[in-house]
Parts: sequence; structure tokens; C-alpha cells
Amino acid sequence: MNREAVRNLKSRKSTPLSTEQYLEGIFSGNRTILSKAITLIESARHDHQIQAQEIISECLKHTNEELEMRNKEKKNSSFLIPHSSLRIGITGVPGVGKSTFIEALGKHVTGLGYKLAVLAVDPSSTLTKGSILGDKTRMESLAVDPNAFIRPSASSGSLGGVARKTRETIYLCEAAGFDVVFVETVGVGQSETVVKSMVDFFLLLLLAGAGDELQGIKRGIIEMADALIINKADGDNLKRAQVAASDYSRAIHLFPPSDTGWIPVVDTCSAKTQAGIEKIWEIVHAFLSTMVQHGHFQRNRISQNRQLFHQAIEEQLKERYYAHPGIQKHLQKLDKQVADGILNPYQAASLLLGNQMPED
Amino acid sequence: MNREAVRNLKSRKSTPLSTEQYLEGIFSGNRTILSKAITLIESARHDHQIQAQEIISECLKHTNEELEMRNKEKKNSSFLIPHSSLRIGITGVPGVGKSTFIEALGKHVTGLGYKLAVLAVDPSSTLTKGSILGDKTRMESLAVDPNAFIRPSASSGSLGGVARKTRETIYLCEAAGFDVVFVETVGVGQSETVVKSMVDFFLLLLLAGAGDELQGIKRGIIEMADALIINKADGDNLKRAQVAASDYSRAIHLFPPSDTGWIPVVDTCSAKTQAGIEKIWEIVHAFLSTMVQHGHFQRNRISQNRQLFHQAIEEQLKERYYAHPGIQKHLQKLDKQVADGILNPYQAASLLLGNQMPED
Repeated sequence: MNREAVRNLKSRKSTPLSTEQYLEGIFSGNRTILSKAITLIESARHDHQIQAQEIISECLKHTNEELEMRNKEKKNSSFLIPHSSLRIGITGVPGVGKSTFIEALGKHVTGLGYKLAVLAVDPSSTLTKGSILGDKTRMESLAVDPNAFIRPSASSGSLGGVARKTRETIYLCEAAGFDVVFVETVGVGQSETVVKSMVDFFLLLLLAGAGDELQGIKRGIIEMADALIINKADGDNLKRAQVAASDYSRAIHLFPPSDTGWIPVVDTCSAKTQAGIEKIWEIVHAFLSTMVQHGHFQRNRISQNRQLFHQAIEEQLKERYYAHPGIQKHLQKLDKQVADGILNPYQAASLLLGNQMPED
Repeated sequence: MNREAVRNLKSRKSTPLSTEQYLEGIFSGNRTILSKAITLIESARHDHQIQAQEIISECLKHTNEELEMRNKEKKNSSFLIPHSSLRIGITGVPGVGKSTFIEALGKHVTGLGYKLAVLAVDPSSTLTKGSILGDKTRMESLAVDPNAFIRPSASSGSLGGVARKTRETIYLCEAAGFDVVFVETVGVGQSETVVKSMVDFFLLLLLAGAGDELQGIKRGIIEMADALIINKADGDNLKRAQVAASDYSRAIHLFPPSDTGWIPVVDTCSAKTQAGIEKIWEIVHAFLSTMVQHGHFQRNRISQNRQLFHQAIEEQLKERYYAHPGIQKHLQKLDKQVADGILNPYQAASLLLGNQMPED
């Protein structure tokens, strides 16, 4: 390649798109432009962020208008719910067969004619040696599926930051006409709470075993799940998977039900042989129609949005506060005194905040 | 009573104690003065708060000095752990027999020569029709036990506020020489997370049944518990309680273990007949020696303190921010737009925060 060609390539690569070009691309379902817009969201550069926020606002407006139009015309959308997309969280420790499962369920979903986006939340990717989604080649057939869009994990950052980026990526995917969004997480950190707060349905993948495979799972995740699926129910493992499913099924009934009254479904599948994959999609449907019927679906989304709003306020307040010069040093000193039991945590907080007494 | 007597009584009642008088009373284990000091902590008055904070600081210093002295002299404390007191959280929905249980376990503990304080965290007392502890008469024999100190629930307030007051009350009780502190909560709200963050051992009381009694329990509580005790294992109910215990025991093994590796113990008891009460105390001992042996006990306390410190900072930041004039009105407007899906929660947060720096 000569210098001219390299220069052309570089200049082509760095030619920034206008907000209108981004929006036109997204609304027409252009994946290359959608990808670029997501990269813009993920960028830390201030000018990128300003443009990203413009794009997100327009995407939300677009989605809302589409919804209103559909409602007015009483035209059924391509999906059975009167909403932009169905958001499904999928979690499980490494080794549970998550990427094979996502590929199997994903192919089933695209086979039904739905457009599917697969995203990943994984702020701790250095810890977990990279998200499974980081390697697109593991989902070979989904990666070349024209109805599927796979987006590897966002670069590392604070959990709040990654959550925000994932959330905003969902908005973009919905504006681009995706019917179903999978959000993958590795099930070992704090990410599940965040994913739970942005999806409609939360699926936990498990393996049959004496509980050892749970070692990596964070406590509380099981109680968040809308479905517990025992994967690798094939060959010699089939019997064990069925026993595990019946054990979990019994156990689930000993635990408090969710506010919606939905009792988590326990089932088996084999992502490898595709056995049980269709049934899982039926479970999602059953959940959906129950939730929509009782109004829980919409209520959940509204409450998620409000929750995110308040979380974002608090996170920003915190970030700003901790960024003040001098605070970090003072904080570390007080933190040590608190750890040593010399200072009452509440008094230490008051000392840091510089007010002698709380106003109330 | 004549006017003079009434006036005397009033004036006697309102004579404020000096900080020295409070401390002298607390260190010598004077319950009347301890009670008064707790009332001071609970008071919203600014001058009360200033004095309360002085007292708390001195109590912490006193406890630390006592601990150091004990460590130096290698003198065994009255309790088997080298710490100020053993803090036990006890939760369960109304009807589970919590007060009878606390009385039974409490009498066992004081019978062994330990000094016991019983506190309650119940910010939602209006909702739950008053804490069981609000009515001391329900724990008749514990109430008159010279080794026991029962303190009814603090008056209502924010969860953070109640948590702080309970925490500070624990410090006072420890300075007053109590070996064991029970912290009671009703198991239906957010209080359990808070209680979990201030105790060493968390005990969940349950009833045998088809799971109906769980309706009131918040999800996630079971996974917080160090012990699940099925109460009312007596008479006709004995068999059912035993079946429930074995069901829970099996179920527990299907769930991820805690970071310390402790697997929650499931057992039955009858607070009425005292059957199994002694064994529960043995479970607490087994937990304690395992935790102390592996260093988890002290690590847990340190991490609790640091967690409370950071929580307190964030809570105070939030409180101050929301108290700014104009914020509430703006917040409500944005909250509605977020709920209606017009605004992205993150953008709404940025709008509210105005992207200016907070003054403090």
C-alpha cells in the first residue's frame, strides 16, 4: 500500500459522522453505523459524549413515536408485546456453556423472524479473563446471522459507567428495530443486580452437580432469577441434570415469591443438542403474557427507570464529591481509623463532610 | 398528687445530666442512665446530638481500652470471644413467635451468666402495627431479669437514621458491659440488610408450612441468614416442623455458600417448651469459634465498619443535596418524565445535577 492509500484509509476512518448520519443509519437498521454509535457512547471524550447524548435522545423519541403509532393503528408489532423490545438477562459462571446457550436460543429466536441483539455487561473483564462475548468466534452461526447483532463487552470502567453504557446501547438497538435483546453477564460479581435492573426477564444458567458449580456464583442471584435452567442435560449427564432440576424446583418453593407472584421456572436444556431450547422460549412467553396481563411488565419498566434515575443522581453526587481535591487523602485516613475501631463510622462521615452535626 | 409534687417530678425529670454523669452511669452499668443516654441518641435536638456524640466517642474509647487491657493481661473476658459483645440479629415475620423465642433464648443466655441487651430495629413500626418489643410485657420474665436490658424500638425515622441510632445504642450497651446484644427486626422491610450489617450472627425464625408464611418475608433474607430456625416445633406441629427443617436443609445446599464458607444451619425449636433452645446457643458458639479461628469474625466487623462509613457519607451527601431549595420540585418533574419514558434516566440525572459542581 502506498502512502496515499494509507492516508486515504486513515482519513476515511477518522471522518466523523454527523448526528443526522448516525440517526439515519440507526433508524434504517445499518449495523456498521449502529456499531459506530455504540463506540461513541463508550468513548470517554467529551465531544463524543455530547454527540452520543444527542443521538440517545433522538433514539428514545423515535422509539416512543413508533410505539404511539403502533398503539394508534392498533397494528401488532412484530413481537407479541406492545413495547420496543423484550430484554432478557442471561447469567451463569464460566464453564456453564453460556455462549453455546446464547447461540442456541439466539438461533431459535432469529429463526422465528425476530431481530436479536446480544450485549454483554462485564466490567470485571480483566478478572474473568475476558467476557465470553469478547470472542465472537465462539458464536459462529449467530455471528453471521443477518437477524443477529453481537456486541462484545464494553471496555472496563466503573460498574455504574458500564451499566449506563449498556443501558444506552439497548436504547440504540431498540431504535434500530431489534425485537429481542440479550444482556449477558458472568454471574460472579455485582453486575447481576445491574443487569436485573435493565431487563424484563432474568435467566440463570446452572450445571448439575453437588453444588460445587455454585462456588463462583454470588449469593442472592438465585433469588433474582425468573428461570433457572440446568444446561448440559445430555448424554451421561441427562439424569443428573433432571435430578438437579427437581431439587431446585422443590427448593424454589421454600423461598419467598417475587412481588409479581411469578414463581421461577426450573428446567433443563442442552445447548449442544438444542434439546429444551424451544421450551425455554415458551417459558419466556408464558412469563411475558402473565406479566403484561397483570400490568407488571409496564410497572417493572417504569420502576426500573425511576430506580436508574435515582441511582444515577446518587452516583454522580458521589463521583463529584470524591473527586474534590483533598477528599481522597482525608478519606483514607478516616477509613483506617474506622477499620481500627477508633472512630464511629457515623462520626467519621460527619468529620469528612466537614459538618460537626447532621442537621436532622 | 398535689401541684408541688407534680412540679418537683417535672423538674426532676428535666434536670439534664452532664456528659460525665452519663459516662459514669454507663460504665458502672446503671440501666436508668443507659436508657437516658439512648433517649439522648434518639433525640432530634441539636444540643442533645452534640452531647450524644461526645458520649459515644467516650464509650468507644472505653471499650477499646478495656479490650486492650484484656488482651495485654491475656485475661479471658466473660465471653469466649476477645470482643466487646456478641451481636445477634433475629428476624422473622409477625406470628412466628419472635418475642417468645427471644425470651426463651434470652433467659438461657442470662442463665449462663451473660449480660444481655435486646434492641429492635423497626423504622416501619406504623406499618407493622408496632414492634413486638414495643410491648415489654410480652417478655415478662426477661423484663424483670437483672441480667437483661430490653429497649423498645426507636421512634420512626428514615432507615438510615434508625440504623445509626441502633448502631450507636450497641456501642453504649457494650460500654455498659453487656456480653450479648440481640437486635430484633420484623423481616418484612429493608431493615434486614441494615441489621445484617451490624451483627455477627443473623438468625431467621420460620414456621413450618407450605411456604405461605414466607409471603411476608422479603426475598434475599434467607440467603443472609447464618441459621434458619423453624419455631413452634411442638405438639401436633412437631412432625411438620421437622419435615420443613429437612426441606430447608436440602435447599440450603443448592444455594451458593457465603464468602466465609459457613453453611447456614437449619434446626427446629419450641420457644414455648424451650426444646432446642440450648442447641441454638451451641450453634451460635460453633459459628463463633469457626469464624474467630479463620479470622472471619474480626474481618467481618472491620468490613461492616467501613461499609457503614461509606454508607453514611453517601446518605449524608444525598440528604444534603435533596434538602437544597428547588431540588424537590425539579426532581418530581424529571421523575415523571423518566417514568413516562420521555427522558433517559441518566440524562434526567444530568439535568437535575445541572452539571455544575455542588457547593460543598
